[in-house]
Amino acid sequence: MDSITIRWEGDERRGMAVLLDQTRLPAETVWLEVRTLEEMSQAIVRLAVRGAPALGVAGAYGLVLGLQSEPASSGAEFLTRTRAAAARLAAARPTAVNLPAALARSVRRAEREAAAGKTADKILCALLDEARTLEAAEREACERMGEFGAALLADGTGVLTHCNAGALCTVGIGTALAPLYVAARQGKRLRIFADETRPLFQGARLTAWELARAGLDVTVIIDSAAATVLRRGWVQAVIVGADRIARNGDVANKIGTYPLAVLARRHQVPFYVVAPLSTLDPECPDGASIPIEERAPGEVTHPLGERAAPENVRAFNPAFDVTPAELVSALVSERGVVHSPNAERLREWLSG
Amino acid sequence: MDSITIRWEGDERRGMAVLLDQTRLPAETVWLEVRTLEEMSQAIVRLAVRGAPALGVAGAYGLVLGLQSEPASSGAEFLTRTRAAAARLAAARPTAVNLPAALARSVRRAEREAAAGKTADKILCALLDEARTLEAAEREACERMGEFGAALLADGTGVLTHCNAGALCTVGIGTALAPLYVAARQGKRLRIFADETRPLFQGARLTAWELARAGLDVTVIIDSAAATVLRRGWVQAVIVGADRIARNGDVANKIGTYPLAVLARRHQVPFYVVAPLSTLDPECPDGASIPIEERAPGEVTHPLGERAAPENVRAFNPAFDVTPAELVSALVSERGVVHSPNAERLREWLSG
Repeated sequence: MDSITIRWEGDERRGMAVLLDQTRLPAETVWLEVRTLEEMSQAIVRLAVRGAPALGVAGAYGLVLGLQSEPASSGAEFLTRTRAAAARLAAARPTAVNLPAALARSVRRAEREAAAGKTADKILCALLDEARTLEAAEREACERMGEFGAALLADGTGVLTHCNAGALCTVGIGTALAPLYVAARQGKRLRIFADETRPLFQGARLTAWELARAGLDVTVIIDSAAATVLRRGWVQAVIVGADRIARNGDVANKIGTYPLAVLARRHQVPFYVVAPLSTLDPECPDGASIPIEERAPGEVTHPLGERAAPENVRAFNPAFDVTPAELVSALVSERGVVHSPNAERLREWLSG
Repeated sequence: MDSITIRWEGDERRGMAVLLDQTRLPAETVWLEVRTLEEMSQAIVRLAVRGAPALGVAGAYGLVLGLQSEPASSGAEFLTRTRAAAARLAAARPTAVNLPAALARSVRRAEREAAAGKTADKILCALLDEARTLEAAEREACERMGEFGAALLADGTGVLTHCNAGALCTVGIGTALAPLYVAARQGKRLRIFADETRPLFQGARLTAWELARAGLDVTVIIDSAAATVLRRGWVQAVIVGADRIARNGDVANKIGTYPLAVLARRHQVPFYVVAPLSTLDPECPDGASIPIEERAPGEVTHPLGERAAPENVRAFNPAFDVTPAELVSALVSERGVVHSPNAERLREWLSG
């Protein structure tokens, strides 16, 4: 499966990035032809492209877009312009870690090329190569997570997932959804339940869209019907992504993940977390140390912009929750699988 | 607190029922002046009035409305008209048990009056008395549930509730919400969290509206944030209503109740079910025997009428779930409290 979030067309001098406008999903499938740095910045700001791995790649291509129409100049001048362009792009989403990391990587490549006495043309060519290399590495990581995860899924498995950790937030087949795509490719039949994921409905809007588009069997449920699906024995695996994993194995992910883990345990269904190694934060000792963002109450009181609650009623809207490591059956990354993760196993796994 | 769902104004010859139009909540508080049987039928059909206890009272008053403009007639003729009017009203909501039960009770009263040789005028007067008596009995049952339940709540308690089992479905202070109103009256300070209750948002629309209106401290959360509220130790009691209780104590209630019970148990928070005795179904041995209604997928795919999911994606939409008796800390009815309900305790309690 090619990337559905972003792809490059053309060469380094007359190229463009083609982006799927995720703000129009699921009603419309609209592709944006992004030809300038400003257009890429805007696409990032208004969430046309989203998800940490996809954002890094968008930034790297955006840098090429910002430099391809520069007039001929010396390598040193071009490097200065590269740094300025990277700073402008990085400002589009200040809190996302993958975007500035990818841009910094591209700037370092430009520095190496300039130091080697390369021309502006050669440096631009190297920057496109850097973006393509990042895209390939991110796609490969998805494939590996998919293969390791698919090995945990037998033919006929019912799977429950939450939010969207799919192709739409990567340039490959996703993180938590990657094992489903690989299992389907292997001929395994899966029955997938997608939690709608209030308050922003990423499950209904995005996960259902991408799984249905790929021909997988998906059924949308409200978040509080997950318990019924588990109780009826329709599900043999719960698979979610992660926003941050502490070094003891506690997992911060979209609000509603922790209750799923509790219910999976009650019904003796394995609970898998699939996330790239970059999600593991060795600076973070445990879940209690992870700050939980609270978002605007309007997301709760006005679903899809329509008023549900009375005016002036308070709402509490935590964006994430923390699942303790003891409820995680296995962590899956591009490096492999850690069963029953804890501080010691994660340390051994990372150093081994 | 007077009934906010329905109240009678005037006498039996020139009276009217004043109904709160619940279809306009929470945006607008609109009172309907209902003067004819047809208007009452329409109000019932379009859910302006809802909830089993409130529907019974609406039917009994609707019967008076249907007969008050009848010309003078013999008692026997009037009885015939009474039966016809009751049949027309009962057809407004065929599956609700309280509506036909209340109408049958009024018809029996008319039969007794007619058999005693009473005039049409006297029978009409008796029918208004019957409706008022039913309203008073329903209100009294709410008060009793409220008092028994409030005894379980200490000052300063955080309470989590789901759906709407409040004043808006009774003619009194509700069932599951009654203990909150009584505790507040007793000067206890409560902090209440209302699950929004997808798919129909009764928690956000109705529970938040009525608790805020009564001056109680209420915060709306998405259903999947309940686990976070419990985990943070903000809640010392979960209180819900019931649609049907099996004779072993299993409880069918709004979808999302069962996961709350599982989470309450994990966090060692008591889980209370408050419901009138009429909810207990002695014909039903256990939760597995309770049929679970599946409603239209559009409630899931189109929250508040706005599309969330892609076209043609399947949705599974069970309206209720079953909480096993082992997770219920206590059942509260107008008769008192049964701790750790099971078949034996419920049998003793009902016969004792």
